[in-house]
Amino acid sequence: VSVAIVGAGPGDPGLITVRGLELVEAADVIVYDRLVAPELVAKASGAALHARDELTQRQVNDVLIHEGRRGLAVVRLKGGDPFVFGRGGEEAAALAAAGVPFEVVPGLSTLTALPALAGIPLTHRGTSAQVTVVTGTSGDSGELDFARLAATPGTLVIFMGLRRLARIASNLILNGRPADEPAAAISKVSLPDQQVVVATLGSIADAADGLESPTIVIVGRVAALGLLDAAPVRHSMMIRS
Amino acid sequence: VSVAIVGAGPGDPGLITVRGLELVEAADVIVYDRLVAPELVAKASGAALHARDELTQRQVNDVLIHEGRRGLAVVRLKGGDPFVFGRGGEEAAALAAAGVPFEVVPGLSTLTALPALAGIPLTHRGTSAQVTVVTGTSGDSGELDFARLAATPGTLVIFMGLRRLARIASNLILNGRPADEPAAAISKVSLPDQQVVVATLGSIADAADGLESPTIVIVGRVAALGLLDAAPVRHSMMIRS
Repeated sequence: VSVAIVGAGPGDPGLITVRGLELVEAADVIVYDRLVAPELVAKASGAALHARDELTQRQVNDVLIHEGRRGLAVVRLKGGDPFVFGRGGEEAAALAAAGVPFEVVPGLSTLTALPALAGIPLTHRGTSAQVTVVTGTSGDSGELDFARLAATPGTLVIFMGLRRLARIASNLILNGRPADEPAAAISKVSLPDQQVVVATLGSIADAADGLESPTIVIVGRVAALGLLDAAPVRHSMMIRS
Repeated sequence: VSVAIVGAGPGDPGLITVRGLELVEAADVIVYDRLVAPELVAKASGAALHARDELTQRQVNDVLIHEGRRGLAVVRLKGGDPFVFGRGGEEAAALAAAGVPFEVVPGLSTLTALPALAGIPLTHRGTSAQVTVVTGTSGDSGELDFARLAATPGTLVIFMGLRRLARIASNLILNGRPADEPAAAISKVSLPDQQVVVATLGSIADAADGLESPTIVIVGRVAALGLLDAAPVRHSMMIRS
């Protein structure tokens, strides 16, 4: 196996896995996402570096396949986890179709990192036993089903929903979700300039005005559990070398 | 901050975060879950070790609070992620109530690690844009709402549902979920004896017979995407020291 699809975690370079960092440090070729910490990319001393933003998806696949076939240690370094809204499945499928063996090293998804770093558990005994996750950007999978989402019990997590947050919140309320239900918006999870806003579903869009992407939104009673002050965000958590 | 609630990841010791391993190596006191890799606990050379299984929840809280107040480096090492079905919220709340500052270091939840390690993305363009996560054990949060679960589009993930899998599957089918919908059961994710079973919702309970806990179940079209053979499970991935 010479190709690895590696999740870099939510942003903080200390939140990559031990295995992921090993592979980065040993890489000959790195294709990295824009949101991956520069400190991590810098760990790949001597590797050929390709910024994902400057390539088409086809070109990314070609680099992985061709360099992998040459036997080079290739790392596709992706933000978060490769398979949670990360399109890692497409790259894995391309490698599989080309007959190139590969390894996938999962990364901390913002989905799971955010509660720990922002003090908001997605589930909590007696408060929420269920989590539903959607992406707020409309894609080829179509529009969100607000009637069903509003009726779904437990915690609702919305990825990449900042731009359409006012519309999403009002549609959830129109479909029966209480306007005074707690909601939180967290931008740049785990980074030094992380921001957390706690409000209600009815006020979250206004409260989140001015936040920067990427922002994740949590709707549900867990958003108001009050663990926030006690779980401080860690700043500038550098990797020891 | 001298107390840290640290997620150890799904089982493989290489899947803890870089930051988590740093804290384990520097710890004076460790309280560790049964499912945490022994290789990780062994990294805490010289630390006082407490097995979670031998303590009540109140005793765990007391250790964290009292040793933390003494200024010792205390690590509560939990399987998976502390806040995803991990009850980390309870310990965080106890520390907050006692006025003991603490840090939370997220861990890879099986929820996100499993797709990468078993070749099953939870979301995939054109296949599934939504994930719903429930726990299969009944708790004080009550019985699962099968009518709503069956009607929810996208991927369904069931934590700790092995023992009640036949009942869960048949209830989903009774409420309208297709019996021929793909389903997968994965036991001991990321460990050398991980097992993956792919079947249909109608046959998954029989197919999963004999698997050991912890087992996670995925229902949805992503379970049949066929990335499985191309994403080999890594075995015996040890941490380099």
